[in-house]
Amino acid sequence: MSFELTILGSSSALPTSNRFPTAHLLKADERFFLIDCGEGTQIRLLHQKVTAARIHHIFISHLHGDHVFGLFGLLSSMGMMGRQVPLNLYGPAKLKELMEQNLQYFPLPFELHYHSPEWRDGGFLYEDEKLTVNAIPLKHRTRTYGYLFREKKKQLNIRKEQIQALGLGIADIVRIKRGEDFVTSGGDLIPNHELTLPPYHQRSYAYISDTLYDPGLSEQISGSDLLFHEATFAGSDEKLARETMHSTAMQAATLARLAGVGRLLIGHFSTRYKDPSLLVEEARKIFPNTDGVNDGDRYSIPLERVPSE
Amino acid sequence: MSFELTILGSSSALPTSNRFPTAHLLKADERFFLIDCGEGTQIRLLHQKVTAARIHHIFISHLHGDHVFGLFGLLSSMGMMGRQVPLNLYGPAKLKELMEQNLQYFPLPFELHYHSPEWRDGGFLYEDEKLTVNAIPLKHRTRTYGYLFREKKKQLNIRKEQIQALGLGIADIVRIKRGEDFVTSGGDLIPNHELTLPPYHQRSYAYISDTLYDPGLSEQISGSDLLFHEATFAGSDEKLARETMHSTAMQAATLARLAGVGRLLIGHFSTRYKDPSLLVEEARKIFPNTDGVNDGDRYSIPLERVPSE
Repeated sequence: MSFELTILGSSSALPTSNRFPTAHLLKADERFFLIDCGEGTQIRLLHQKVTAARIHHIFISHLHGDHVFGLFGLLSSMGMMGRQVPLNLYGPAKLKELMEQNLQYFPLPFELHYHSPEWRDGGFLYEDEKLTVNAIPLKHRTRTYGYLFREKKKQLNIRKEQIQALGLGIADIVRIKRGEDFVTSGGDLIPNHELTLPPYHQRSYAYISDTLYDPGLSEQISGSDLLFHEATFAGSDEKLARETMHSTAMQAATLARLAGVGRLLIGHFSTRYKDPSLLVEEARKIFPNTDGVNDGDRYSIPLERVPSE
Repeated sequence: MSFELTILGSSSALPTSNRFPTAHLLKADERFFLIDCGEGTQIRLLHQKVTAARIHHIFISHLHGDHVFGLFGLLSSMGMMGRQVPLNLYGPAKLKELMEQNLQYFPLPFELHYHSPEWRDGGFLYEDEKLTVNAIPLKHRTRTYGYLFREKKKQLNIRKEQIQALGLGIADIVRIKRGEDFVTSGGDLIPNHELTLPPYHQRSYAYISDTLYDPGLSEQISGSDLLFHEATFAGSDEKLARETMHSTAMQAATLARLAGVGRLLIGHFSTRYKDPSLLVEEARKIFPNTDGVNDGDRYSIPLERVPSE
């Protein structure tokens, strides 16, 4: 029951000798979700000993090169390694056009299935038995999406000792697991929280790639355990951030505070800052639980029960 | 007066954690020539501390992803770093089509000039005051070129002591530097080699990327100081080499011997061989002066005078 984020690439548009362009990998309950795919992503996957064949869903935030140039190589390698099952690509509608044009030159032995968000569905993009993914519209120089990965509510676990004590039958148990209270044959009401273990917290990861600062995002990502927010610039370069439709570290931290997230990760630092710890310090003044990410960093959210209200 | 090759990427189609896809960098007399541009080439250039802005000529062997997927990122980064001067791309004619399609999505602030070889010119592609580059047609599954980089003949250096001893005038010196003998006022013929220092050896690098073994190449690359030849397979997999239109290490070595080159470099090893030193050993049995290349390896050819015949 893992929920673990690995930073594959942490640079902004220009890579450095130890920061590859943007790519994140979320491992949720043994499923891998690749988020953005900058140049060299397939090499970073090798460094992390993650088999590319295990990736079936790739989410692209926007069609700027530093977020997509690794797709061609990764998909080609998947093909050479014998992939036959389809791969799902999520992102702006133009991604399909870009990929189809390049497939003329570099054909693949498997299908690509394209998915773009529809806003009437609240940006809904993906669902399996354990997780949902929604797109979050961002404000950048081209159509850009953030993504919110959120575990579904898990079924309640019944307190085993109560089954015998109360003589619960199968039908009772099903109802209790759904959250209902129980009424004994004597007419006593036993509240659900006395019958079940505290529910599991629904873990979530919000990925906010290139964007102008937008406090309006706080509602959608409210209470996320982990928020990655780009922080291309320092506070002193806020004007530049606005002009290029990027954010400062302080703006990322302000959003983290507004949204009440658990932990803030910042990255996508401009190469103009030789030492990005300056940006991390700026963010921590506003939101102390902030980390500046490096390639290879891992953040694991433990599975925990939380007392019901 | 450098003539130095740096291996930026040495893998075959699939990268490994320490081998990036193919890219070579030749530095000849302070000019940089990039040869193939696999994914991650711009990162390898950073590792080598080579400023991408100094590259004005990129030679692409063929349009398979492991030889071109780094172009998009490298060119984008050049643009972001403010490049305005045109960049020259050499390769199969289809390269232009591929680049122009992608430029629709990822525009550049500088021009690309495309060059493809014309066979009536013997594959001539590039010339400056010190160097020529010719394409070499290879036998692969798509239009593929090797490249021969060769220094031009340098002007002879006159032996300074002879100027005074023979009372040479400017016109005499010009003729002697061109290689002519000198006749004294007394009618004695002084042969050119007594008047000049031994000429410089014309250094050369032959790059033979993906190809079926072709002994017919030996003439064009005859006597090269340095030959890179792909060696995707071991001798035991010669059938596979033939089917995929690649070469074995022994075939690469046989061509090196036929062509009488100075040193053979092999690479592009299939990932099926956990330890490519096996392939190097096979090649050395046929051509002892063989090296298996790794990312970051450098080979420098010194500038030397050779006695005239």
